[in-house]
Amino acid sequence: MPAVSRAKTKMSYTLPDSRHAAETLDEHDILGHAHDFFDLPNGKVYLVGHSLGPATHNALDALEMAGGRSWRNELVKAWNSASWFDLPQTVGNKIARLIGANEGEVLIADSVSLNLYKLASAARTLARTSTLIVEEDEFPTDQYIIEALAALAGADFVRVAPGEGLNTVKATGGVLVLSAVNYRSADIRDIADAERRAQAGGGVIVWDLSHATGVIALDMKASGARLATGCTYKYLNGGPGAPAFLYIDQSLTARLSTPLPGWMGHARPFAFEPSYDPANNIRRFASGTPPILSLAALSGALEVFEGIDIGLVQAKARALGDLVIERAKGMGLEVTSPEDAACRGGHVSFTHPHGYEVVQALINRGVLADFRAPETIRFGVSPLYLRFTEVWDAMDDLKDILDHDAWDDPVYRQRDTVT
Amino acid sequence: MPAVSRAKTKMSYTLPDSRHAAETLDEHDILGHAHDFFDLPNGKVYLVGHSLGPATHNALDALEMAGGRSWRNELVKAWNSASWFDLPQTVGNKIARLIGANEGEVLIADSVSLNLYKLASAARTLARTSTLIVEEDEFPTDQYIIEALAALAGADFVRVAPGEGLNTVKATGGVLVLSAVNYRSADIRDIADAERRAQAGGGVIVWDLSHATGVIALDMKASGARLATGCTYKYLNGGPGAPAFLYIDQSLTARLSTPLPGWMGHARPFAFEPSYDPANNIRRFASGTPPILSLAALSGALEVFEGIDIGLVQAKARALGDLVIERAKGMGLEVTSPEDAACRGGHVSFTHPHGYEVVQALINRGVLADFRAPETIRFGVSPLYLRFTEVWDAMDDLKDILDHDAWDDPVYRQRDTVT
Repeated sequence: MPAVSRAKTKMSYTLPDSRHAAETLDEHDILGHAHDFFDLPNGKVYLVGHSLGPATHNALDALEMAGGRSWRNELVKAWNSASWFDLPQTVGNKIARLIGANEGEVLIADSVSLNLYKLASAARTLARTSTLIVEEDEFPTDQYIIEALAALAGADFVRVAPGEGLNTVKATGGVLVLSAVNYRSADIRDIADAERRAQAGGGVIVWDLSHATGVIALDMKASGARLATGCTYKYLNGGPGAPAFLYIDQSLTARLSTPLPGWMGHARPFAFEPSYDPANNIRRFASGTPPILSLAALSGALEVFEGIDIGLVQAKARALGDLVIERAKGMGLEVTSPEDAACRGGHVSFTHPHGYEVVQALINRGVLADFRAPETIRFGVSPLYLRFTEVWDAMDDLKDILDHDAWDDPVYRQRDTVT
Repeated sequence: MPAVSRAKTKMSYTLPDSRHAAETLDEHDILGHAHDFFDLPNGKVYLVGHSLGPATHNALDALEMAGGRSWRNELVKAWNSASWFDLPQTVGNKIARLIGANEGEVLIADSVSLNLYKLASAARTLARTSTLIVEEDEFPTDQYIIEALAALAGADFVRVAPGEGLNTVKATGGVLVLSAVNYRSADIRDIADAERRAQAGGGVIVWDLSHATGVIALDMKASGARLATGCTYKYLNGGPGAPAFLYIDQSLTARLSTPLPGWMGHARPFAFEPSYDPANNIRRFASGTPPILSLAALSGALEVFEGIDIGLVQAKARALGDLVIERAKGMGLEVTSPEDAACRGGHVSFTHPHGYEVVQALINRGVLADFRAPETIRFGVSPLYLRFTEVWDAMDDLKDILDHDAWDDPVYRQRDTVT
């Protein structure tokens, strides 16, 4: 019985050609109510939801409940009374709906890096060969962990040119790690097509859904995707460093072994048996005790998605992105994200030779955007809290900064440790 | 420059022989002020601090600050402004002092299971052979992860009889995972002696300090210990599932590689380079993004230890344990922890054929203890918040329950999922 909520609505948001049109769109926005879930600081336009999603009232309430109520009052009994033990699965089920998976196919655990390690290792029993493959422009940390897995397991490791991953996985029958949305350009991969090609050669893809989940209408089941992981602190707004999720097609679970077993994944976790006997469901991919306070915040954060059609979320993200791209024309920026919204994730990237300073100038005006070296500016258009008028006004700010070289100020050249 | 705070005080707490004597001890307890740091529920005696430490005001405040202030107001900029990026190291330094390590030798990361995996894998380059060793009565989840590491790395795995680990590591020159305090009996290992024996054979020990940290005056440097990990949610009171720590002797760090690399451990984490170049310090053992909200709570939790001599904490834990054992005499319980306090960690274990029901009867009277199948009752005597009078009265309750078979009630036989 699928918990899948596939994109049901064909509704698309029109591209506003004036601030008045943007206001009208906001007034009639069927997702407008979601804005009220968020606890946003006043006077800021937050275009970094693709990096760290903002806090919702529900997330902060759940955090307070887990700390000040369950932990403080119920102490160790909260593992039962507050259902802490079940959170990895119950919160996983909330995400299942958003990626087109069934209940019981998604588990909260560890970080994306560690889940890639677990899934890519396990995938070797499904694949024709154990060759591990990444593309050169894959998210760097994904490359590190797969190269390390290959080194420890004595498997072949291949780093191929951008776009060559699918040919290689088909040819070698190995295991490819692939982002559904590229972190830099926001290019979307066609998951169904990629799966067809990989499987034709006996290969397996482990999907990184970090930049896709919560902003694109993913449908893992219909796409034939078998293994995936993703982070929860971007468009899912789970909080800083919120634990990641992993997805396994349920028909495969019993055949897969984790290389990182822990008591949470044991068939009888409280029997304290010396040997590992994995649970007969996705819990077998859990390892150590999860960070309950962070997990509770994530659980609360996901409440904004309840009853929301992810197809609508995607439609609004596309429209917001189109607005950014349309208004960026003539500003002297090079747009490096796809112009076709159907090929683009939830952020828009530009390059500018003084990208860093431009972003600082924007921040100084209350428009929070982010920068990726050497010269990429990214505008995340997270659709649940952003309004068309906010994005319209942010583009006015950007135009003003570029028209008047307002970025050319020594104060904007100082670099923080973390950008 | 060591941040080490070795046990300076020879003070010992006397064993109270009456409730009045217990009251006097509480009145003059030099650690008595620490009780005020804790936010404890009224009317409970909490003897499960060895499993999940209780909340402190500082921990809950830090959690509120990280969620409701840093995340909510500063959003992604909090990685700089709230120093989130540095937390794994700054919080690690707070723990360094408690285990007799230097600043820069302790990092907060992942879970104990995953840190054992990282350290045992890395230890193979220090050891004469890559044989991986555990004892049969080692904490079960430690056994699972080491067996899994051996399977993936193609290393020999040996599970030996209790107490045989040191002979085996000396004979094989391999890598042994060993708990400093046994989770069931609370037996303490002599770390310095164990290190001498292991190193004489070219072997390496990876210490699990989970049941030792914050309750025993550990001195990793003086003991010659090279690698360790431990959890932070027991005597350190870091909160449910708080992230774990790992310790590496700084003279070895540059020689060690993590098998689970991530962006947090890269020499230049914000350069987004496709290949992994580890940081030249302990940060190289970080992997993915840590759960900041849980980490913030841990940071606050550790404030109670500031300025406290861990030797005094140990002395009080010994006295509280002695009190439990002394008063348990004649109750028909078998004490399975060492009677000699110098050999015993922070909890006392008994067996009773109806241990489960006895614990339920205690809980019903507000005395929270825990149970480990098949018949072990554990009383954790976490010394920073427990008073001698509380323990005295809890033993009265236990005596009354046993004297009158008050545990023999159907309501006490129902088992929770999590115990």
